Amino acid sequence: MSNSIGTAYRWTSFGESHGKCIGVVVDGCPAGLMLDVNQVQQELNRRRPGQSTISTTRSEEDRLEILSGIYAGYTTGAPITMIIWNRDQDSSKYDEIRWTPRPGHADYSAYRRFAGFNDYRGGGRFSGRITAGFVMAGAVAKQLLAKIGVEVLAYTCKVGGIEIPPVTVEEIRRLTESNSIRCPHKETAEKMIMVIENAKIEEDSIGGSINCIVLGLPAGIGQPVFDTLEGDLAKALFSIPALKAIEFGSGKDLCKLRGSESNDYYKIDGKKIITNSNNAGRINGGISNGMPLTLNATFKPTPSISQTQNTIDLRTYENTKIKVEGRHDPCIVSRAVPVVEAVTASVIADHVLRCGILSQVMEKSQ
Amino acid sequence: MSNSIGTAYRWTSFGESHGKCIGVVVDGCPAGLMLDVNQVQQELNRRRPGQSTISTTRSEEDRLEILSGIYAGYTTGAPITMIIWNRDQDSSKYDEIRWTPRPGHADYSAYRRFAGFNDYRGGGRFSGRITAGFVMAGAVAKQLLAKIGVEVLAYTCKVGGIEIPPVTVEEIRRLTESNSIRCPHKETAEKMIMVIENAKIEEDSIGGSINCIVLGLPAGIGQPVFDTLEGDLAKALFSIPALKAIEFGSGKDLCKLRGSESNDYYKIDGKKIITNSNNAGRINGGISNGMPLTLNATFKPTPSISQTQNTIDLRTYENTKIKVEGRHDPCIVSRAVPVVEAVTASVIADHVLRCGILSQVMEKSQ
Amino acid sequence: MSNSIGTAYRWTSFGESHGKCIGVVVDGCPAGLMLDVNQVQQELNRRRPGQSTISTTRSEEDRLEILSGIYAGYTTGAPITMIIWNRDQDSSKYDEIRWTPRPGHADYSAYRRFAGFNDYRGGGRFSGRITAGFVMAGAVAKQLLAKIGVEVLAYTCKVGGIEIPPVTVEEIRRLTESNSIRCPHKETAEKMIMVIENAKIEEDSIGGSINCIVLGLPAGIGQPVFDTLEGDLAKALFSIPALKAIEFGSGKDLCKLRGSESNDYYKIDGKKIITNSNNAGRINGGISNGMPLTLNATFKPTPSISQTQNTIDLRTYENTKIKVEGRHDPCIVSRAVPVVEAVTASVIADHVLRCGILSQVMEKSQ
Amino acid sequence: MSNSIGTAYRWTSFGESHGKCIGVVVDGCPAGLMLDVNQVQQELNRRRPGQSTISTTRSEEDRLEILSGIYAGYTTGAPITMIIWNRDQDSSKYDEIRWTPRPGHADYSAYRRFAGFNDYRGGGRFSGRITAGFVMAGAVAKQLLAKIGVEVLAYTCKVGGIEIPPVTVEEIRRLTESNSIRCPHKETAEKMIMVIENAKIEEDSIGGSINCIVLGLPAGIGQPVFDTLEGDLAKALFSIPALKAIEFGSGKDLCKLRGSESNDYYKIDGKKIITNSNNAGRINGGISNGMPLTLNATFKPTPSISQTQNTIDLRTYENTKIKVEGRHDPCIVSRAVPVVEAVTASVIADHVLRCGILSQVMEKSQ
Repeated sequence: MSNSIGTAYRWTSFGESHGKCIGVVVDGCPAGLMLDVNQVQQELNRRRPGQSTISTTRSEEDRLEILSGIYAGYTTGAPITMIIWNRDQDSSKYDEIRWTPRPGHADYSAYRRFAGFNDYRGGGRFSGRITAGFVMAGAVAKQLLAKIGVEVLAYTCKVGGIEIPPVTVEEIRRLTESNSIRCPHKETAEKMIMVIENAKIEEDSIGGSINCIVLGLPAGIGQPVFDTLEGDLAKALFSIPALKAIEFGSGKDLCKLRGSESNDYYKIDGKKIITNSNNAGRINGGISNGMPLTLNATFKPTPSISQTQNTIDLRTYENTKIKVEGRHDPCIVSRAVPVVEAVTASVIADHVLRCGILSQVMEKSQ
Repeated sequence: MSNSIGTAYRWTSFGESHGKCIGVVVDGCPAGLMLDVNQVQQELNRRRPGQSTISTTRSEEDRLEILSGIYAGYTTGAPITMIIWNRDQDSSKYDEIRWTPRPGHADYSAYRRFAGFNDYRGGGRFSGRITAGFVMAGAVAKQLLAKIGVEVLAYTCKVGGIEIPPVTVEEIRRLTESNSIRCPHKETAEKMIMVIENAKIEEDSIGGSINCIVLGLPAGIGQPVFDTLEGDLAKALFSIPALKAIEFGSGKDLCKLRGSESNDYYKIDGKKIITNSNNAGRINGGISNGMPLTLNATFKPTPSISQTQNTIDLRTYENTKIKVEGRHDPCIVSRAVPVVEAVTASVIADHVLRCGILSQVMEKSQ
Repeated sequence: MSNSIGTAYRWTSFGESHGKCIGVVVDGCPAGLMLDVNQVQQELNRRRPGQSTISTTRSEEDRLEILSGIYAGYTTGAPITMIIWNRDQDSSKYDEIRWTPRPGHADYSAYRRFAGFNDYRGGGRFSGRITAGFVMAGAVAKQLLAKIGVEVLAYTCKVGGIEIPPVTVEEIRRLTESNSIRCPHKETAEKMIMVIENAKIEEDSIGGSINCIVLGLPAGIGQPVFDTLEGDLAKALFSIPALKAIEFGSGKDLCKLRGSESNDYYKIDGKKIITNSNNAGRINGGISNGMPLTLNATFKPTPSISQTQNTIDLRTYENTKIKVEGRHDPCIVSRAVPVVEAVTASVIADHVLRCGILSQVMEKSQ
Repeated sequence: MSNSIGTAYRWTSFGESHGKCIGVVVDGCPAGLMLDVNQVQQELNRRRPGQSTISTTRSEEDRLEILSGIYAGYTTGAPITMIIWNRDQDSSKYDEIRWTPRPGHADYSAYRRFAGFNDYRGGGRFSGRITAGFVMAGAVAKQLLAKIGVEVLAYTCKVGGIEIPPVTVEEIRRLTESNSIRCPHKETAEKMIMVIENAKIEEDSIGGSINCIVLGLPAGIGQPVFDTLEGDLAKALFSIPALKAIEFGSGKDLCKLRGSESNDYYKIDGKKIITNSNNAGRINGGISNGMPLTLNATFKPTPSISQTQNTIDLRTYENTKIKVEGRHDPCIVSRAVPVVEAVTASVIADHVLRCGILSQVMEKSQ
């Protein structure tokens, strides 16, 4: 496995769904950041299950414990290790999935990759629960980015066939946390919740997608030709279970456009340089152009559903059926919003640090 | 900049559009591969401009020269350096773009990233011409993968509003190279070419998208949680200029589906394990499941168009106009097909080598 | 900071001397290794302070806790997180060293590197205590290497002016743990202990050096030209505090020799290829030649001594004096023996895995 | 193989002794450095064979050609590719060494590593000739470091039993290039040359060692706990063929000292903080303390000697004899001086860039 990512801001993920804990080691955070621990906990709370009728009713406390890297309230430059302890869980019901892989899950591919030795309980290392570590790493990154005025905002933009109309940054800031689906548009949110509750009633789940914007990012950030902003964001985001597509700017719709429509041109706005449109996501050649970066991430429906499904038995090599027990999220998207935000913030912090910007800020802040 | 990518199969890109050459250093190719140099040249020819009415009429010879790493016809284990020399080019017309950034290009973001010192001639390091290096690296990867029966195939699936109907692997193999747009469906190809020629007449360009499939990949390849197949493929593919969206399996459409529809279930097919459908792209938890991997990449319209466009003057900070001279590709997609194939092959070779598979094959082949 | 090292077998170190714990995340250990937890604890015990009259009388329990990566007694392929908890410690006496850097320690350079925010208590991240994490990572590596018959052995070869005569592998195995200085030669060990006790009486410390040999390593391991065995071993070993010189084979003495003396030549010994001598440490071109690899590491005297020493006051920029309180190791070398062994084992495991050897072994062992 | 090294200043080495060329790709050099190409050539000239009676009489022109990364005299931020072309060489005499490995060379270990496919001609990838690439990368690094007043100086300090007495920085600067052995002490240099000429007459070679100092390095540079200055310097230096030991400060002699002798203490010198001595090489905790960094590298005698030597025949597995034809360096140390300087400069540039210092300087210099 490969459980570390990032160059200057580097995070290492560890822990399993039914192991002792879920954790992360953040390496490269400059010394001298006064860390707001409550804000980290708050981000964990946003990801936590059991928040509403549209997420699983499993209740997990997910209380942050910091094991290293903070002294007297400040980051020290040393690796920051953060964990949440897992509570005792009933793993007995997972014996079945060991040999009968759940459709849409990593049970079978992990079985092959790890020759049957992987911890299969609750999905083990492939559980969505590992994203709690990403959230902790991202919460630190957000506080770091705030020092140079960079803000990362995500929200649910699509569930099933329901799509949000255009919204302003002000609406995103004000409304995203006002409903359980994290959609900053009241009517759309209500429709989305209805779609999800319908799926839940039918023992089913539903997919959706998330928009994420990065505000305040200076022009000139990015390390082409391989460590592009798009490439590094995409790579990190694909570590979130169930994510299956990434788009920047107008994304997939660009295949329908003409160059005369899709070319964002520069213009002078007072003393600032801006673009007239945002088809490229404000990334050109893998480098930020100083305007808000935008991306979209599509999540497949939660693979865990209560319906009986087809599968195979790895012991007998015969077709069989499986019924996945437990309380499932009928739609993972609302809980994925803080995760997408966190991963995006971590990647942006990495690139900002690689350009030598934040390290200078922190030295001054002493 | 960051111009190396890959872990076990690692390639380093260099060269600029109007510099001396475009090249690549491939590091990690096992010793003992009998390299078919003609096949590498052939892949370069597929990417070369001037192939048809729908690509630029610029003519470049792009003849491969191998500088290191091959002895007596075999790879030696040493880094393989491959270049194509640039021909003398008229760079004078690029003086204008130095200060008036072309819409849709990296001129402005690169200006900010490199404090004005970047080689702007022909887009310099941001020119599509650098993908010739990716093609050379991928051509070696393809020959390596062939040793274990892995095949990578890409084709144009969408141009403007025209989309290909479902095609078989056999059709992809047989028909992709039969037309200038590289679409393995005759009628669709003809429509696509018409759409492109119309754009060309109107001094415009058009976007499109490419499907890529990987056949013969064993189950159990991938290094989660960060070096997933999706993540590493996406990161590498986003180094191709103009690429703006990546999807695996059903990709963006997954947001509309229910779990009961999107969950690919396993079944026994004779002695093989297969899935009934391909919504996840045959990657679960970042690991291959043994079935054909599928991805889709969307390209924005070529930003170089002959129409007069708005821009700014970086010297005066005033709005101005620009007319981009030269012969442009009205649609980059057909020439991007071999590039997507090459980049995909390189990433897959990297992951196969990281699993220790190919190194064993090569040792036996001595 | 940069707290991860290794490519295929990768370990991430965290924790501070007076923080909550010292830990390590091991990433890349193949699935299916039955981990002997007692053996890991035993290696920690060898490093633990308070073992004898020649080490510090501080008593630390250093009990291993595994947080992730093991299930049902086997490695799962997931990252293995191991920690030892720190006991409540009196940190008050360290207030002084914050502003008056201890000679020979990292207090001053860390102060400059981290703008004064580093955790200075007990040396913080620069304490020798962090090597407990290296020992845990190395203990897993040793068990992994045992699967292919590779053994790593270290012993004290020099303390002050006292040097061990040549010893056999059998003597190293049998005698190293028989005395407190870990020198596999009784008479030499007794002299070394006397030298150390004399230093201790005089409130002083003494330097020394360690030999390390790797037995059973196959020929052909190493990744030149940069990831040579020498280079990767040296880099990893220099993370051990107080280590200041690394030699392979005859090391520094090679500057006095002639080629006709120093060239190790190959000869046939039955069916095996061996070398007549070991001036190159059995590494040629950065690659193992199949014979026992040998290296030597020199440690400076423990910088913590009870004598009053000169220093400066960083608040006033004036010269001052410091007396370092506490119980110190008069010679760190005996406790460094298991650390050198552990770091060497981790690097060798990394290179063996990179060559694809161990992954094959583990798959068979299922 | 692994032919790239460095994080922010990253160089990739390629080429073989009897291939087309030797080259290097330097990635990460900030844009805006006015590159003095003559100075790069001059460094190559210092490494070139045929300079004097104590080096090989082989004559190689080694003329620099820059393939990418420089425009209008300045670095552009793009990867800088530099090569020297190999002249047509007689490779026929190397057929013999293919099967009868030369003592002290990498012939046998490379044969095993690359399953017999390695380019054995002239040692191929293991030839000292590849260090020309290191010299080119280092020459750029030196010019970069000069922008912040950092200077790297190496000189021969030991050959056989002959050792240089203490010399001043002024003497090193003035005298190192004044004699063919590059020893900045006239009498010692003469003795060294005599020792080398004696070895040459007897068809033998002799070892030696090199001191290297880094002046002007700010305090606070280094990335512990793994990317220490010592560790990264050692790793990079061990890529130089024939290098077998690395020491910092008093190095190996530290094993004989007591803490009260070896602890370098800080004192105020006017307004500067200095240390009274240099036992630790001015690196504490892997971080520079602002005083001149010092290291020593020991080279084994050139393995190529004209005497008949024992070896084996890999075809018959029998003992045999070999006589290595050609003109050899009786002592490699004088030609290794610019290589040690170059590699040290590259590593220091990497660490300075990682601290965000040089990138700031370059932006201002626009």
